[in-house]
Amino acid sequence: MSTPPNPEASYPITKRNKAKRLHDRARYDHASVHAILDAAILCHVAYVIDRQPYCTTTIHWREGTRLFWHGSSASRMLRSQEDGLPVCVTVSHLDGLVLARCGFNHSVNYRSVMCFGTARLVDDLDEKAAALHAMIERFYPGRDGALRPSSTQELKATSVIGMDIEEASAKIRAKGNVDEPEDLSVPVWAGVIPVMTVVGTPQPCPHNASEPHPGGTAVYAPSRTLDQILTENHLRYEQGA
Amino acid sequence: MSTPPNPEASYPITKRNKAKRLHDRARYDHASVHAILDAAILCHVAYVIDRQPYCTTTIHWREGTRLFWHGSSASRMLRSQEDGLPVCVTVSHLDGLVLARCGFNHSVNYRSVMCFGTARLVDDLDEKAAALHAMIERFYPGRDGALRPSSTQELKATSVIGMDIEEASAKIRAKGNVDEPEDLSVPVWAGVIPVMTVVGTPQPCPHNASEPHPGGTAVYAPSRTLDQILTENHLRYEQGA
Repeated sequence: MSTPPNPEASYPITKRNKAKRLHDRARYDHASVHAILDAAILCHVAYVIDRQPYCTTTIHWREGTRLFWHGSSASRMLRSQEDGLPVCVTVSHLDGLVLARCGFNHSVNYRSVMCFGTARLVDDLDEKAAALHAMIERFYPGRDGALRPSSTQELKATSVIGMDIEEASAKIRAKGNVDEPEDLSVPVWAGVIPVMTVVGTPQPCPHNASEPHPGGTAVYAPSRTLDQILTENHLRYEQGA
Repeated sequence: MSTPPNPEASYPITKRNKAKRLHDRARYDHASVHAILDAAILCHVAYVIDRQPYCTTTIHWREGTRLFWHGSSASRMLRSQEDGLPVCVTVSHLDGLVLARCGFNHSVNYRSVMCFGTARLVDDLDEKAAALHAMIERFYPGRDGALRPSSTQELKATSVIGMDIEEASAKIRAKGNVDEPEDLSVPVWAGVIPVMTVVGTPQPCPHNASEPHPGGTAVYAPSRTLDQILTENHLRYEQGA
């Protein structure tokens, strides 16, 4: 489906995406950036209309170095912008609360990525259908073929936005608390409280057939973490399974 | 600490925050907006530098209709802008994956809020110290008094940004799958896969005292949801406990 990933590929470092502080947390290689994108469903898209910034939450998916996302309130505006709209797409995972012995050293463990590029509406119906097929398969492996096919009217009513990732930077903090040596004797609990996003017990529609086609839901076993599931789904999708 | 909430208060509806589509999912009242803010630690801040939008992930907390967040890469830029910087602060919770019988009717359950206002650096050291005290107490009730107090140098090295919420809108989807009546016989699994963010088993620092002051961590019992914990913490903080 996609070009196989190149393990040495990296996004360029420019004024726009270079980490301004905490450089040791920054990554620019495709593997680090893509892993953070692929482990999430929700992204935040920042864009500007009449000098006013907006930050819209939506659902994204990736093909190679191209990001797609689902219609947002910017769609109407995008329709009138043939040149596309400069955007910053950010994806974040909260992995833990880091408690130290002074306020200054408190932190969180996280993985986040900022992607810069120009957003354009995917207007061609065939291209849009292919992108929406990829969206369903990306989240629910093998599901699309079991669904009632989309009508032309549905395709027209759906906004899909595409963006080539021009620059990107990832930031990761994944470690314990860091205290000043002289603070170690302060008698307050310090450490990390892990945070994870998990799936719960599926709530079936009462109209389901007695043994419905699972439609890509088998991987969503209760209490698995969402990012593990999504990462596996993406790998399977990339391998064309 | 804060003014008691007014159950009938609402943010104004303007061109900027009015929901452009799916109006039945939109809310503008303080209670709905604040509940979504208070249940989260991570927010996404959109801002513009030289026409380029940026979306930065950071930690936020709230006092009445005022939002605070922790230093971001916009700090340096904010320092030179006495008039403040127009921003949009967005907070989102993913609550479920909604699987339907055609691609078009797939969705997610979520709670999200967009807040508009002008961001300004909190430069006054006393005000900054108060805001950072609030941040610690907001997340870890009773912790701040058990910590080694912040030094002036630490306070100066921390960026705190404040913003009065001028306008805000919340969006909520919290229901099952919605299919066309003629699709109900398509034999594919449909329903909702719940998604929740939970805390795991705390990982104590090896230097902890044998019975350290819990420092507000007792509420973080493993497998509780983070939004429940944060919501309770906020209520306790508002009641001045």
